[in-house]
Parts: sequence; C-alpha cells; structure tokens
Amino acid sequence: MAQTVGRRDVLKGAAVTAAGAAAFPAPAIAEGRMKWRLVTCWPKNFPGLGVGAQRIADRITTMSDGKLEVKLYAAGELVPAFEVFDAVREGTAEMGHDSPYYWSSKNKSIPFFASVPGGLTAQEQIAWIMHGGGQELWDELYGEFGLKAFPAGNAGQQFFGWYRDEIKSLQDLQGLKIRMAGLQAEVLNRLGATTVNLPGGEVMAALQSGVIDAAEWGGSWMDLAFGFYKVAKFCYGPNIHEPGTANSLVVNKAAYDALPASLQMIIQEAAVAEMTNMLSEFVVMNGRSLKSLVEDHGVTIGRLPDDIQKKWFTVSEEVVAETAAEGDINRRIYESWKSFRQQARALAPLSELGFMEGRRG
Amino acid sequence: MAQTVGRRDVLKGAAVTAAGAAAFPAPAIAEGRMKWRLVTCWPKNFPGLGVGAQRIADRITTMSDGKLEVKLYAAGELVPAFEVFDAVREGTAEMGHDSPYYWSSKNKSIPFFASVPGGLTAQEQIAWIMHGGGQELWDELYGEFGLKAFPAGNAGQQFFGWYRDEIKSLQDLQGLKIRMAGLQAEVLNRLGATTVNLPGGEVMAALQSGVIDAAEWGGSWMDLAFGFYKVAKFCYGPNIHEPGTANSLVVNKAAYDALPASLQMIIQEAAVAEMTNMLSEFVVMNGRSLKSLVEDHGVTIGRLPDDIQKKWFTVSEEVVAETAAEGDINRRIYESWKSFRQQARALAPLSELGFMEGRRG
Repeated sequence: MAQTVGRRDVLKGAAVTAAGAAAFPAPAIAEGRMKWRLVTCWPKNFPGLGVGAQRIADRITTMSDGKLEVKLYAAGELVPAFEVFDAVREGTAEMGHDSPYYWSSKNKSIPFFASVPGGLTAQEQIAWIMHGGGQELWDELYGEFGLKAFPAGNAGQQFFGWYRDEIKSLQDLQGLKIRMAGLQAEVLNRLGATTVNLPGGEVMAALQSGVIDAAEWGGSWMDLAFGFYKVAKFCYGPNIHEPGTANSLVVNKAAYDALPASLQMIIQEAAVAEMTNMLSEFVVMNGRSLKSLVEDHGVTIGRLPDDIQKKWFTVSEEVVAETAAEGDINRRIYESWKSFRQQARALAPLSELGFMEGRRG
Repeated sequence: MAQTVGRRDVLKGAAVTAAGAAAFPAPAIAEGRMKWRLVTCWPKNFPGLGVGAQRIADRITTMSDGKLEVKLYAAGELVPAFEVFDAVREGTAEMGHDSPYYWSSKNKSIPFFASVPGGLTAQEQIAWIMHGGGQELWDELYGEFGLKAFPAGNAGQQFFGWYRDEIKSLQDLQGLKIRMAGLQAEVLNRLGATTVNLPGGEVMAALQSGVIDAAEWGGSWMDLAFGFYKVAKFCYGPNIHEPGTANSLVVNKAAYDALPASLQMIIQEAAVAEMTNMLSEFVVMNGRSLKSLVEDHGVTIGRLPDDIQKKWFTVSEEVVAETAAEGDINRRIYESWKSFRQQARALAPLSELGFMEGRRG
C-alpha cells in the first residue's frame, strides 16, 4: 500500500485541509501535566492502523498517570494524512503515526525503514532496526529533519494485487494499468506494466470504472473491507513487493529531548510494544479475512507465476540498489540493510522458511 | 532448549539453593516507592535471555520514575532457576522471567505458551497470544496458580541438534541417546531415539564424554557460546521441534492487582516491548553466529532428511493432541491453538513462506 507524498490523501475520508491547525493551542502545561497531539495518516478508528495508533496515545497517557496526555487526531482532523511528517517537524503536533515510505520524496532511502521490494520479512525488518544498526541510521537521517522515530507497527501480509483478468505469465502484465506506488511501482513499470498512484479511497472506483486494470493496496483484512473482490476476481500473492510493511511513531526531536527520562522511555516502550501488538492483530485478522474471502466470497487466490517472481526479484535488486547513489547516508543505509539481508537469508532455511516448508507437508 | 522442572538447574552456574530467600525483606514501601524482585531462570547477564530480563527490570524502574524499583536476581541468587514459578506464586519474589515450558509438570498445557513441536513460528505464536485468544486462556490457567503472565521474549531459531555422526535417514536416529526435553523429547522417543534431559551446563561434558550421542539446546548464538561444534561435527535444522520458543514475565497476581493502573500498564508494555526487542537481538545474533560457525569453525549445517521431517510432523500432531485429554482447560487451549494454526498455515504461502521461497531463488 505504498504511497508517496504530494498526492491526495491515502485513505477515504482523510481529505481535509490543515486549516484546523492554526486554531490549536500550544502544548498546555499545567501542574506538571502536558498535553501532546498525535496526528496520524489514518481515518478515525481505522482497523489495525488507526486502532493501534489510538492504543499508543492511550497507553502513554495511562503509563504516565496523566502527566503526558496524548490526544489522537485522525487524518484530516488537524492536518491531512500526507502532512503528518511536516506537521511534526514544524511542531504543529508533537507526534505522528505513519508508514515511513509515505515520505520518500523527502529522502529516497526512507522506505528502508518501512519495506522495500524483495527485502525483509516483518520480523527481519524490526530486527535490523533494533539490533542490526537500522535505528542509528534512521536517527541520523531523521535528525536532519528535527525528528526522532520509533518502530510502531507492521501490517504483515499484503496481496500483490487484484486483477480483472487472469495472470499466467509475465506477458500478461504488459501494458496493464495497475495501482501501485513507491519503489514497488518502479519495479512493476520495468516489468512492463504502467503504474498509477491512487489514494486508497479512490482505488475501488477506479477499478470498477476500468480506469485501472488491477490494484494493489493492503492484505486480506483491509482489502476485504475495501471490497476489491467484487470487481476483480483474480487475486495474487505472495507479498514480494512489500514483504513486511512497518509503521512508525515519529516525534518532534526538540520536544522529545526536553522530556524527562521517564516519559522518553514511556514513549519508546509504548511504540515498540505496539509494533508487536499491531502486527499480531494483522496476523490474526488477515488469516480470518483470508478464510472469509475464500469461503464466503469465492475468491481464488493465485500464486504469482514463476517467471514474474524471478524477474521481480532481479529488478528489485536494481531499483533498491539505485537509492545508494543518492548520497553518503543513502549508501550507508543500503549497505547496512544489504549486509543484514544476506545474513537473514542464510538463517531462513534453519528457522521460519525451513520450518514452514516442513509444516506445509 | 525445553526443560522440565524437577531436574537440576537449566544453566551452568545457576545451581544455588533458595537459602538466601529468607534473609530478603518484604517489599519496601517508603514515600510511595516500592521495591520489587525479579527472579530469572538465567545466569547473570546471560546473552539474550538474561540481558533482556535486565532490560525489563531497568525500564520498569525508569518508566515509573523510580516509584516501582525492580531488582533482578540471576538464577540462584535468590532462588534456583527451576523455583522461579513457585517463588512468584508464594511471593518470595513479585516477578519472574522464564520460558513457560519449564513448568509443564504444573500443567501439561503450559508449553502452548512457549512452543510446541510442529506448532507456530515466533510471529504466529505471539499473534495467537495477543489477538487469537491465547492470553485469555493463559490468564485462566495461571489464575489457578495465583499468577498473571505476559509475553516477554522469544529466542527465534533453534538447532534440531548436534550429532557426532552423520544423520542420513530416520534409521540413523534409532537407539541414539540424545539430549532433548519436554514434548519434543516425547516425539523424538517415538521416532526411535532415547532422550535424556540434561541442564544446559552439563550438555557439553556429556557430549564430550560420550554419555550422549547428540544434543539439542538453543540456536546459533547460544550454541556457539557453549562450543558444541568442538565435539559434534554434524549440526541439523530447521527448528521443527521448537519453531518459536517464547519467554514470559510472570507476576504474582495479588501483587499485580494491588498496583495502580499506571504501574500495571508499565509492566505490561515493558514485557511486550521486550518480546520484540529480545527476538530482534536473537535474529541478528543468530545470523551473525551462524556465519561464524560456518566460516570460522568449519561447521556444516545440514537439513534434516525428509523422512525424519515427515515422521516428526505426524508424531508431533499425536503428542500435542494428547494434552487435550488432561482436562477441560487443556482441551480448550488445544482447540484454540489448533484452529489458529490452521488459519496461520493458510496465510503462510501468501506471506512469509511464499516470500522467503521467492527470495531464496
């Protein structure tokens, strides 16, 4: 569900201007109690993502015993979805909940902190961030924007896309107009398709009217809700385009640095705990929704043909490697990530990959 | 590295009596500040597990701004490793850090909250606990012991074992004496081996002297440290016996219930954040240690022969299903887990399994 800034809002109902921002007062500090604003890229109570962001707000408030009261603003309530990054930079809000790859126009390497095509599973992704050198590079990169980010969620499984016609080989992708965005879109373009970047709320209508031939958005849970199965009968996996799409809690660095150690740690732990909490909810709900798609709605989920998969991984390597040429920090992010991925690939047959192959029988 | 209670301590250096306990005062409450004790199954600063438990203690202290000061006791400092469960029940300590399957003698279904043979990956395991009904069943089961538990770590990849002689088929397992414990050991026995349950600190010596022919303990990181490669040249994976070995923070329920909501939430979030933190460290360090085992120590890591894997999954189903006959709660735990696993298996080819197969090329 990658999306880049500069387009209209990512999700239906999020297209509201930032006009409300000016009316909002500076952080209120009374009797040692602070009020912080958490702006998000998600509509109010949006399953998984919005609910998870709300948990972060509530739990920071609870853990701090009300000393740091966090109020959540859905996309458009204070600023539009795609102004979250800038709103936190500028202090319009102290915190934001997003997926980092929305900000790739700010720096081409930001998607490494979300998910890049052919990259890392959700578990590998967070491992690289927390213990593989990723967080340090992220701090350096975001420091230039006056921001500090923490891992704070992951959507898990994603569909490669919903197609009106069956895809039997690479040939069938040629010339198709497909909704996809970010580095993934660039890979798909090089495979012969023509990608279109549409906000989530417009995808269904575009698919229905034939403006696009196929669409990529989220996984079983979100795509069932959007109802893509009603107009596109052929759905494909696995998620070679977004193997583990991470979310983050982005904080205004000056505001964060001014907090006492206790509140800094509360924010960090609330974010990291939500990383697990949100991914867990997606794993459960994606599994439940997949069952519903197949059993209640008669959807056939296909496996992407081998020639597409093979080509996808080859081209992904090129597209991802090109980010390294952007500058020194970009090169170091790419090299750290690449070295970790090599290690993760070697471990996989002895752990998750090997185990799941055996369990499948 | 499953182990059941009633044996000597799980890890070297942990074999100290509980004599120190009596000398320890009741929780000190001065000026609204509490001191809690966290006992663990791990030696002081033990990589991954011990360091992670220390992080939980430190972060609760920091987040609560010292209102709840948690002091960690390594195995043997206050109580021996295998008395952690009872020490927390009885209030000798308020909290413990363990792997739940150490307590399978208390109830045969407790291993479902750690890892069972042929079961769930680390990511699936935590998903079942947090959003698939697992936590509610765990609360009910542990409630009978006056305990409340939170997920609080996972060791990730585990080796199936280190063998003195090459294993080419199921035939080669017949009559071998192998260190393995828990439900896994029962599966291995039914495959024709004779399992021996030895604490971690005794495994290396037993392997060296020929008391055992093969040994299972942990994954790349821990097993490299133990030096098993020095005496057993054949190492096998994947981890079909323990696909995702979880740790938990177990808390005396009466003590927990008496806390204000802010401190309850701080404990919960510290545990869940450590779930991700510890697993991430294991993913990184297991990968790094695997490279060292292969490149620096010339270890050949083999893939378990197909006939062993096939038989393993079949027999695991039987052994795991037998726990359901123990009682009503056991049946409900088994059925909830089984239903979730079916859903997770269906999702795998569209997510981690499918992606990693494609990435392997």
